[in-house]
Amino acid sequence: MACRKTRRPRRNRDGAKASRNLSSPTLAKQVTEIGHQFYARGWALGTSGNFSAVVSRDPLRLAITVSGVDKGLMTEHDVVGIDERGAVVSGSGKPSAEASLHLAIVRARGAGAVLHTHSIWSTILSDAAADGGLAIEGYEMLKGLSGVHTHDHREWLPILDNTQDWASAVPRVESILQEQPHAHGFLIRKHGLYTWGRDLGDAKRQVEILEFLFEVMGRKRGMAWQP
Amino acid sequence: MACRKTRRPRRNRDGAKASRNLSSPTLAKQVTEIGHQFYARGWALGTSGNFSAVVSRDPLRLAITVSGVDKGLMTEHDVVGIDERGAVVSGSGKPSAEASLHLAIVRARGAGAVLHTHSIWSTILSDAAADGGLAIEGYEMLKGLSGVHTHDHREWLPILDNTQDWASAVPRVESILQEQPHAHGFLIRKHGLYTWGRDLGDAKRQVEILEFLFEVMGRKRGMAWQP
Amino acid sequence: MACRKTRRPRRNRDGAKASRNLSSPTLAKQVTEIGHQFYARGWALGTSGNFSAVVSRDPLRLAITVSGVDKGLMTEHDVVGIDERGAVVSGSGKPSAEASLHLAIVRARGAGAVLHTHSIWSTILSDAAADGGLAIEGYEMLKGLSGVHTHDHREWLPILDNTQDWASAVPRVESILQEQPHAHGFLIRKHGLYTWGRDLGDAKRQVEILEFLFEVMGRKRGMAWQP
Amino acid sequence: MACRKTRRPRRNRDGAKASRNLSSPTLAKQVTEIGHQFYARGWALGTSGNFSAVVSRDPLRLAITVSGVDKGLMTEHDVVGIDERGAVVSGSGKPSAEASLHLAIVRARGAGAVLHTHSIWSTILSDAAADGGLAIEGYEMLKGLSGVHTHDHREWLPILDNTQDWASAVPRVESILQEQPHAHGFLIRKHGLYTWGRDLGDAKRQVEILEFLFEVMGRKRGMAWQP
Repeated sequence: MACRKTRRPRRNRDGAKASRNLSSPTLAKQVTEIGHQFYARGWALGTSGNFSAVVSRDPLRLAITVSGVDKGLMTEHDVVGIDERGAVVSGSGKPSAEASLHLAIVRARGAGAVLHTHSIWSTILSDAAADGGLAIEGYEMLKGLSGVHTHDHREWLPILDNTQDWASAVPRVESILQEQPHAHGFLIRKHGLYTWGRDLGDAKRQVEILEFLFEVMGRKRGMAWQP
Repeated sequence: MACRKTRRPRRNRDGAKASRNLSSPTLAKQVTEIGHQFYARGWALGTSGNFSAVVSRDPLRLAITVSGVDKGLMTEHDVVGIDERGAVVSGSGKPSAEASLHLAIVRARGAGAVLHTHSIWSTILSDAAADGGLAIEGYEMLKGLSGVHTHDHREWLPILDNTQDWASAVPRVESILQEQPHAHGFLIRKHGLYTWGRDLGDAKRQVEILEFLFEVMGRKRGMAWQP
Repeated sequence: MACRKTRRPRRNRDGAKASRNLSSPTLAKQVTEIGHQFYARGWALGTSGNFSAVVSRDPLRLAITVSGVDKGLMTEHDVVGIDERGAVVSGSGKPSAEASLHLAIVRARGAGAVLHTHSIWSTILSDAAADGGLAIEGYEMLKGLSGVHTHDHREWLPILDNTQDWASAVPRVESILQEQPHAHGFLIRKHGLYTWGRDLGDAKRQVEILEFLFEVMGRKRGMAWQP
Repeated sequence: MACRKTRRPRRNRDGAKASRNLSSPTLAKQVTEIGHQFYARGWALGTSGNFSAVVSRDPLRLAITVSGVDKGLMTEHDVVGIDERGAVVSGSGKPSAEASLHLAIVRARGAGAVLHTHSIWSTILSDAAADGGLAIEGYEMLKGLSGVHTHDHREWLPILDNTQDWASAVPRVESILQEQPHAHGFLIRKHGLYTWGRDLGDAKRQVEILEFLFEVMGRKRGMAWQP
């Protein structure tokens, strides 16, 4: 696979600057487009999945999908603005219960966008790992992950246990992000994938890369492996 | 997965009221849209599948797809109105032979919409269960089912034997619905899925949730399991 | 699954009459639409597949796809008229080398349309049968086949060895169609499916039914079976 | 499958002439259309894949996708012209790091177009071969490959080890193309497929044929085989 075109400088500071120049309505439109595409691919069925992008960093503002929306039918009105504590500051609707996770990732990684998908293969693989994570190694597709320049790379995705209290789980997530500074995402057991990027395009590319690799690995392990 | 947005009050009475406000042509349009989408996903190939929504409760009127229609080509004219005994009261065409099942579910569950799909995975899994039903447990996606608020949930879907005489089978279906008051759907052996909801959006979400989980479970059991 | 709506009388004579009323341009348009749809589903990739419909019975005229066309890009100009010996009588282009098979099926079964697809699952299953055919039994979806009114049906699809000389193979095909008067289609080994119907809609429904059932059976046998 | 329609003479000389008549903007549009289609099929996710077509042979000029583009969103501006050494001569953007491979194939095979995809099944199968290549034999679909007129054909696709230095790997690729003069493509281990044709339509058909056959073989070997 070709290296991706470097359209913007890579430093978070610059990424943030780029995001700041984008108005929230534009981000809402991009988030909506991603929702439609991921729904069509079966990665966000049944109102699952939630997606966010940084509107500004100081003060911190996120554009994030509201809870319970059919991603195939969603419009820009299903994206609200929240502040650094998760309170709605623009638009109307209840943000995802996992908004605290999005905020934690933005803070820990300086991400400009966070995408969370529920695919068949991430659900299956997140349930299989014996040692707290999933290793993916030696595939050309890995070069689609930010900062990876060779197929000779070992990606380690931590797997977190699921919970219904993400606000309380934030410290756990933060410590995992700190322990695994090179991870490009993480899985939640029997739940799905979180990944992120400088901007929505960057994060969308990583979702496609990781979902592709999950399917490759799932089909290879396949039925010889029983969880 | 985020909890779904509660757009309407949950009581059946209110659900019914909401439905009463929707004219039958609007429901016919929504049913048609669902037909097109499910056909595209391969859940209603070869004229299979049938879909209904409550137009009014007193007297009971259902908008339901007619028999033998290509769901990819169907239009609003392929949806007819039937009364509580299944007789056509508006539009023309023969309602599905399974209309009596739709009516039984509406009565037993107070549902505002009933959807029946024929997918690959529901066909396979409905043939596999050894003990009269299929258990699905521990998946975040289960939260997409009405009234489920945690992944720590065990869904039990009864499996009914297939028949060509659904009118006579209604008592059997009613007794299963009564014995399993928490089931969000049921399977018919080597045939497919029935699920329902307060309205068409609610029922469509449940189809997507259950079909997703069928695929996860089917791929996991996979080929190590032989029916 | 609901019984299909009987839109037209079932006798071949009447089917022929219905077809005679359709002008060839209309049939060409319908064939093209089927080509686009089957290409999108992956049943006619790489210029594979060929499709025909009866324009008139006396004299016998078929509208048939020309050879080597990308079914995703095909237009009505890629459908030509042929006579009972396979010679082009309208439009330009070389008809499929398998035109003689289409003509044989039209004659033997009184079919109004013949569809031939190359899917993943028909390719796999056509290579697996040990005893000259594939049995499919007990599925509700079988009711989508013409004249089948219950899931309690056993469909037997003969499997023919592949050849590059279909003109010479016609007697073999005719004798198999005669020996298996109830078969709704046949498979060619490592090649694909032939099925037919009173008209294009009827034949398209049977393709969807059979392809659905091939996928169910292929996934069930799956990897426990090794050809 | 029907033999493909021979729309153009088969000799490379004539193929080249045909290509020369096509202006580069037309080729860029065709390349873009292929990018959209392959992205939709999951063969070019996450900015993977690169595609080229010969604009002229003397001097040699290629229209080729730039690096790092989302193939689902790409436009004609994401196709640049390069010369025989890979330098950009029209448009702006960095050509794929694998441009040297495209040029080597054009020279060695007289190809008018080269397509490189990253699919699930080519990634899996490219990792499985024990003896330096993948054999595909006896399938009707093989007739979709240029110059193959019978299913009774054995296609041997060499598998190359992956590298990040394709410029240096060109001699290795050239020697493999010379040793295997009948191969219609090759695989790169854990990476994907290269194939080519007289023009873009010809090369696209071969991608579809080979990807179809990879899926058939991958599903058949399936889970009984462990790499």
